[in-house]
Amino acid sequence: MAKVDLNSDLGESFGRYTLGMDDKVLPIITSANVACGFHAADPVVMARTAALAKDCGVAVGAHPGFPDLMGFGRRNMTVSAEEARAYVLYQLGALDAFLRPLGMKLQHVKPHGALYNMAARDPALAKAICQGIRDFDDSLIVLALSGGQLGVQAEALGLRSVSEVFADRAYEPDGTLVSRSKPGSMITDEDEAVARVIRMVTEGVVTAVNGEDIPIRADSVCVHGDGPRAVAFSAKIRKALEDRGVELCPLSRLV
Amino acid sequence: MAKVDLNSDLGESFGRYTLGMDDKVLPIITSANVACGFHAADPVVMARTAALAKDCGVAVGAHPGFPDLMGFGRRNMTVSAEEARAYVLYQLGALDAFLRPLGMKLQHVKPHGALYNMAARDPALAKAICQGIRDFDDSLIVLALSGGQLGVQAEALGLRSVSEVFADRAYEPDGTLVSRSKPGSMITDEDEAVARVIRMVTEGVVTAVNGEDIPIRADSVCVHGDGPRAVAFSAKIRKALEDRGVELCPLSRLV
Amino acid sequence: MAKVDLNSDLGESFGRYTLGMDDKVLPIITSANVACGFHAADPVVMARTAALAKDCGVAVGAHPGFPDLMGFGRRNMTVSAEEARAYVLYQLGALDAFLRPLGMKLQHVKPHGALYNMAARDPALAKAICQGIRDFDDSLIVLALSGGQLGVQAEALGLRSVSEVFADRAYEPDGTLVSRSKPGSMITDEDEAVARVIRMVTEGVVTAVNGEDIPIRADSVCVHGDGPRAVAFSAKIRKALEDRGVELCPLSRLV
Amino acid sequence: MAKVDLNSDLGESFGRYTLGMDDKVLPIITSANVACGFHAADPVVMARTAALAKDCGVAVGAHPGFPDLMGFGRRNMTVSAEEARAYVLYQLGALDAFLRPLGMKLQHVKPHGALYNMAARDPALAKAICQGIRDFDDSLIVLALSGGQLGVQAEALGLRSVSEVFADRAYEPDGTLVSRSKPGSMITDEDEAVARVIRMVTEGVVTAVNGEDIPIRADSVCVHGDGPRAVAFSAKIRKALEDRGVELCPLSRLV
Repeated sequence: MAKVDLNSDLGESFGRYTLGMDDKVLPIITSANVACGFHAADPVVMARTAALAKDCGVAVGAHPGFPDLMGFGRRNMTVSAEEARAYVLYQLGALDAFLRPLGMKLQHVKPHGALYNMAARDPALAKAICQGIRDFDDSLIVLALSGGQLGVQAEALGLRSVSEVFADRAYEPDGTLVSRSKPGSMITDEDEAVARVIRMVTEGVVTAVNGEDIPIRADSVCVHGDGPRAVAFSAKIRKALEDRGVELCPLSRLV
Repeated sequence: MAKVDLNSDLGESFGRYTLGMDDKVLPIITSANVACGFHAADPVVMARTAALAKDCGVAVGAHPGFPDLMGFGRRNMTVSAEEARAYVLYQLGALDAFLRPLGMKLQHVKPHGALYNMAARDPALAKAICQGIRDFDDSLIVLALSGGQLGVQAEALGLRSVSEVFADRAYEPDGTLVSRSKPGSMITDEDEAVARVIRMVTEGVVTAVNGEDIPIRADSVCVHGDGPRAVAFSAKIRKALEDRGVELCPLSRLV
Repeated sequence: MAKVDLNSDLGESFGRYTLGMDDKVLPIITSANVACGFHAADPVVMARTAALAKDCGVAVGAHPGFPDLMGFGRRNMTVSAEEARAYVLYQLGALDAFLRPLGMKLQHVKPHGALYNMAARDPALAKAICQGIRDFDDSLIVLALSGGQLGVQAEALGLRSVSEVFADRAYEPDGTLVSRSKPGSMITDEDEAVARVIRMVTEGVVTAVNGEDIPIRADSVCVHGDGPRAVAFSAKIRKALEDRGVELCPLSRLV
Repeated sequence: MAKVDLNSDLGESFGRYTLGMDDKVLPIITSANVACGFHAADPVVMARTAALAKDCGVAVGAHPGFPDLMGFGRRNMTVSAEEARAYVLYQLGALDAFLRPLGMKLQHVKPHGALYNMAARDPALAKAICQGIRDFDDSLIVLALSGGQLGVQAEALGLRSVSEVFADRAYEPDGTLVSRSKPGSMITDEDEAVARVIRMVTEGVVTAVNGEDIPIRADSVCVHGDGPRAVAFSAKIRKALEDRGVELCPLSRLV
């Protein structure tokens, strides 16, 4: 029977600012990527998010980002390998501190935003990130863009890596994401998006933007909780997978 | 034979800004209080400081502070108990992440600046800080102002606490520090300061500002490395203690 | 005919984080207190907020706060007089830069959160804030808590000050606000709150928490836009004032 | 008679961190580029720097940078045109606020670090920066890399631009700087560097890295004050220029 993880970015509130419907999306997902205070979150938010994830029985991973709260970690920054490794270590340690008193353990790491996108393409950056992850705990799972450099470097360093797919994004024939700046980059029809997810998970195939069917590895599907519509769509994906008999389980049970 | 620890605040550089002569003071001390990125330090500085401490064989403790880089953590801030506990957890975890790959373990925690001073007087704040410490690792040693609330609350929560004294500060008859705003708060004569340290460590006694001898517990002496003169004075204290046959050892060997 | 200003805190979004229904509350108010990037707002938010205020014909004032985004400027911080003056100057200049290209001029200054509350009680802090305001532009109007130190110091320095009242807060017999920690500090009945505003504005009188009628100067009423209910209540206050023939006008037309 | 401006980056201290020997370099230069709180400086530092520049009779310009204190504004960041314009406006306004009480006026703007380097190559970024400058005050002078896009866009928007040269950098035959990553990018011999400056200023010519003499416009020479050696070298450049009869004057007297 096919298995898949559903992951979502959580714990992105900061101080007086609330972001995301974490309590609504947690019952849908199996793994949570929790912000660590660089691009989003503060220590109080992290403590509460960890407790909420525990209550919902959802596995927790770190979601480290660039030190750019103003840009929400979505802006490319040129950081050195030493900086990238240190930023990852710092954020992993900080989040782990909130899991310890709850008797929880970090399951995985998924870089956030620009760090994720840059790491998919830049081997040196990807390697530095993975060195930080390995130096913290070499049993951590790296959640990486299907076909990107992060997964390659993770495995080169002996880390386990899993491959993430997106319901609402189109793919190039080589398996990379179609850039958002190109027409047709987004799958806007919900039913089509759900059907694509089913096929990626159960058959390991997706139709690329040129119409060609290509192989794709779908260990985890990224869903969103930043609004009522996103939550409803996430629930729809979950239900469709369950209806097909796909088992939903956290990353630790996939690898 | 009397034993004592010498501690100093280290790793306070940030980005392009260098502060302190860490490489000069490390050979003098036995325990280092390492900044964790809130009032000072950044992840790269923390990685380097941890490595330097290891090279010098100095035990590492966390030096958590208020989230106030602009004020260097020296300005009082009214934070809730939830915030205080979370700020401590976050900083302990972050620093610990840099010790792991070096095979080192956090030895102690000493709050920084305004957090240290407020915690000495405010039982609720002291308790929240100690809850954060205990929730991270209940074997950590709390380095606290002699006679202050932080030590009281640490012991109430089952943590080990040790008592810090200052070479250059005058004491009130009740064992608290004379406020810096009062005349006579600082011991400006170096020889007198050294003599006081010797007496605190070997006899457990200090002459208070009113001339009265009072009992004081001196587990650790705080020394400074923020300039050539401070480093020379720190070395002088160390030599005077050694000349008297006092054994210098890290906190973990005192408790 | 009685005149009054309605003011509200605006422009408090930051990066990816949205706060407040600025577009809904702007048509109700006559003066906007715009965040300046310390406790809230970033440069892009400030540019947009200034443009929105201009479109709505609302006068703009600066809303400087403590450099504490994580605490939204609501936490007391001990800052020196030099720091307070410099923080005010910095924020006034920064906001003013966004008004210039729109042909607008700063009308007033209202400190935010903990800075506002501390300045109401602390003459030295209030004076330092007012020195910053005066050094930037001595024609600026200071919007201060009715009866507090900020207004006193503003006038001592030759600045014009106006007095702010709150619809939802109870007053002590001496005209100060009842602390939120005391029972009865909040006026929870909306009709009672509106009636109190009418009386403060048209008669200069409010019933204190002990039942006694006391004089109060109500140049401006603070209303909120941080949710649909707050906006509706703000509109209700405006309508009640208009129904009584009170003229609503910005602070610059009151002094 | 030839004229030239000597400029230096100043006011880069932050909180407890001191950087640069501002008091030593101010007597040497004619224009100061003052940090505005994004990549360096805080409001208190800015107030003190403005006062110091006034005491020394040195003209003040703004030195806006990326919001990246941890990276000292030296890391490339991808910001939108809206962000770039707003960041510039914010920083210009903030610095101007400290000049007003001293009766001073902003003379020029020189972007800092990565913002300067990116703007030299990226027309869209350069244009956005210049729009911010123009929207603040269209009489401001733009201090830009000789031959770069910032000067081009400044003039396209009707701003006055002046051209900056470096004593210690080699030039490509097209007048751009040799990248620091290439061999021969730095002029390490002090006498050679001084001779090059004299020739750039008095003849408008420099020998490019390939040995060819190329024309160069040298309105201002950038000197450094970040250490005793840099200060001594800056003084040497000044003296050599004076010995040749070159008049040293601020940018405002060059355009």
